[in-house]
This record gives sequence, C-alpha cells and structure tokens, in this order.
Amino acid sequence: MKYNKQDIADLDRITKLKIINSVTGIKPANLIGTISNNGETNVAVFSSVVHLGSNPPLLGFITRPQTEEVGHTIQNIKENGEYTINHIHPEFTKQAHYTSAKFDMTISEFERCGLTEEYIDDFKVPFVKESDFKMGLRFKESIPIPLNGTALIIGEIEYLLLPDTAMSNGDVDLEKTNSVGISGLNSYYEVKKMATYPYVRVNEVPEF
Amino acid sequence: MKYNKQDIADLDRITKLKIINSVTGIKPANLIGTISNNGETNVAVFSSVVHLGSNPPLLGFITRPQTEEVGHTIQNIKENGEYTINHIHPEFTKQAHYTSAKFDMTISEFERCGLTEEYIDDFKVPFVKESDFKMGLRFKESIPIPLNGTALIIGEIEYLLLPDTAMSNGDVDLEKTNSVGISGLNSYYEVKKMATYPYVRVNEVPEF
Repeated sequence: MKYNKQDIADLDRITKLKIINSVTGIKPANLIGTISNNGETNVAVFSSVVHLGSNPPLLGFITRPQTEEVGHTIQNIKENGEYTINHIHPEFTKQAHYTSAKFDMTISEFERCGLTEEYIDDFKVPFVKESDFKMGLRFKESIPIPLNGTALIIGEIEYLLLPDTAMSNGDVDLEKTNSVGISGLNSYYEVKKMATYPYVRVNEVPEF
Repeated sequence: MKYNKQDIADLDRITKLKIINSVTGIKPANLIGTISNNGETNVAVFSSVVHLGSNPPLLGFITRPQTEEVGHTIQNIKENGEYTINHIHPEFTKQAHYTSAKFDMTISEFERCGLTEEYIDDFKVPFVKESDFKMGLRFKESIPIPLNGTALIIGEIEYLLLPDTAMSNGDVDLEKTNSVGISGLNSYYEVKKMATYPYVRVNEVPEF
C-alpha cells in the first residue's frame, strides 16, 4: 500500500492514528510512575521512551498536547521532580494497557489496574513491583515541540535495577529480561534475540 | 543488580554505554537515507526514531552531538530538506549494522554495505530497496537538547509504503512486516505478537 502526502491527509482520523502510530516500528513498553504532592499515585503506559545519552544518563519521552483531561504524569513530575520508568513484562501487559484510561486524579491506576506500588531507597515516587527492570529518574527539562504542542520530557537516571539474568556477554539481553514492545496504540510483542554484531570500526567492515 | 547515581557514574565508559543504551527497552531498527547536494548518498542505522504525532504525521529522531567526524545524515537533511526512513528486516541486519562505521563522505554506505538505492516518485533522496516498509519525510525542525549537545530532528511523512500484508484487523502488525528491534548498540531482535487490547474507555476497564 502506497500513500502520498494527500492520501495520508485524507485518511479517516482513527485509521490515520493507528497507522502513523505504527510506522516507527517497534516501540518500548514502559510504565511511568509518579506521585502528586498530595500523595496521589499515578502510573501510565508510555511507548515513547528514548535514549538521549549515556554520560550523563539521560532518557526522554514525549507527552501529548496537554489538556485538562490528560497530564497527571507530567503534572506530578513537575510538582516534585521524580518519576520511575518500569519495563512491562508479558505477565502484566493487560494491566499495563488499561492504565491508559483517563481516570480521575483521585483514582490510582496502581490500585484500579491491579499493579503494586513499591518504594525503594529514598525515592518518594512509586516503582511498579511487578517489573524487575526499572529506573528512578530526576526531571531535568521539558522541551516544547511547537509543531504540534507536544513536549520532550528529559530526566536523568539516578537509580537502576536490572534483573540478575539481564547480561549476556557484557550486553543487556532484552529477551532474557522479558521486556516487551508495542506497535501502534494497543498491540504488544515479545522480542526474540536474533543477532549481535561487533562495534563497527571502518577498517573492519567486511566485503558485501 | 542495583545501581544508584554514584554507581552509574563510576561504571567504566564502555559498560555505561552498553547498559544505558539498553535501559529504554526495545528500540525500532531503521535506516535513514539521505543525499548531499553533490549527489553523495548516505544511509545509516538509527534506533531512536520516535512518534511525535499523527495529524500532521510527525516523527523525530535523536542525533549525537555533532562533530566533524559524524553527521553526514544531518548535514544532508539540512542541505536539501528530505530523508527516508526504512524498516530493517532480518535478511539485512548485518548490512544495516555496518552502516554505523564512520565512512568518508565520498563513500556511500549503500554500495559499501551491500544495500540498494531506490528512487520513488519525485523524492530526490534514496530509499532502501531491500526494505518494504518505508517513508519519505520532509525536514521540519531541529530542536537542540542543550543538556548533552544532541538534537531532536523532526520531519513530516510525505510518502508511506507499507507491505500489503501489514494490516491485521485495522492495525499494523509488525511481526507480519518482519520489522526488527535493537537493544543497546548492536543486538537485533525479531518481534512476536502477543496480545492486542481495545482502545481504553474509563467505563470499560475490567476489574483486576
């Protein structure tokens, strides 16, 4: 199927949403945990977490245009500066997915969706107990994207928990950690490791 | 394994790179094709392509801090405003991976790494013929990320080619399209569809 610019513009809203949300390819499946200054906890599924740099260790994620209805995650992050990112595993994709409902601020998705708050060290925000690959981050900056009203939320990793089985020859193996992927708005995928290649130096590139 | 902020800072450079590049979870595996105004083509593997919005259809990706050695992709995009994003499939992960070598500007990774340039419609930049899920984009904006010198490069999709087998019940199925994922810097994964859930309305959330 071929679409040019006009074909894409002419797609009905739902079809366009579904297709354009899938075209990047597989997306990481994470739950972001937050807490308000009133102690109301929130957890929500995000598929836009992206690596920005390792030194310092910075991750970003994209927020939707902020309206009254959405944005508890962002509101909480801006209130107290901390959040958690937790890998989703196959055992709780359903619970994770239903956190995308627009619940009232007073309802905690943890309780409503069958996930368990876990508090670690001196982080005041909840981690997801069911996840065994998780991070605590400190908010650094929100960079507005004026083209569509979204924003890139940037944080620095201050706590990292990896399962003991994660490493394979010095690399993290996401099949062993049971990490999952998302396509579009609502499909979940397991990942199967296929190949690992060396870091590429220009004088070591084979003939093709 | 548990790491606090200081533990992370104390990791040796390579271990830190490998771990922090993996913690987002699975990343999409794409080749970005470009051409200079002198007609020199370039193709490079990127794992940071991220959905920004569907209407207009905007995608972003993260560039490394720009130095003399890197940045042919960005240089070309800024020169002529167009680029292509092409899904990587299992048959050419090796070719795709080796595009990460820092070749001279005069060497085309297409030729050196065994990939084939393909020109479609009135796009002047090359697509990757071996990919059957690909997009042509027009550059919209480069948003600097001062925290670490990277940037978010934003483009609008003006051409989209999906394989005919892509759709499953109105959604793109990334297992059927043979799209692959990346973890860290050099591991490639197949994806296996596991579950699809409905769009979530708050009054339709099941009891957990």
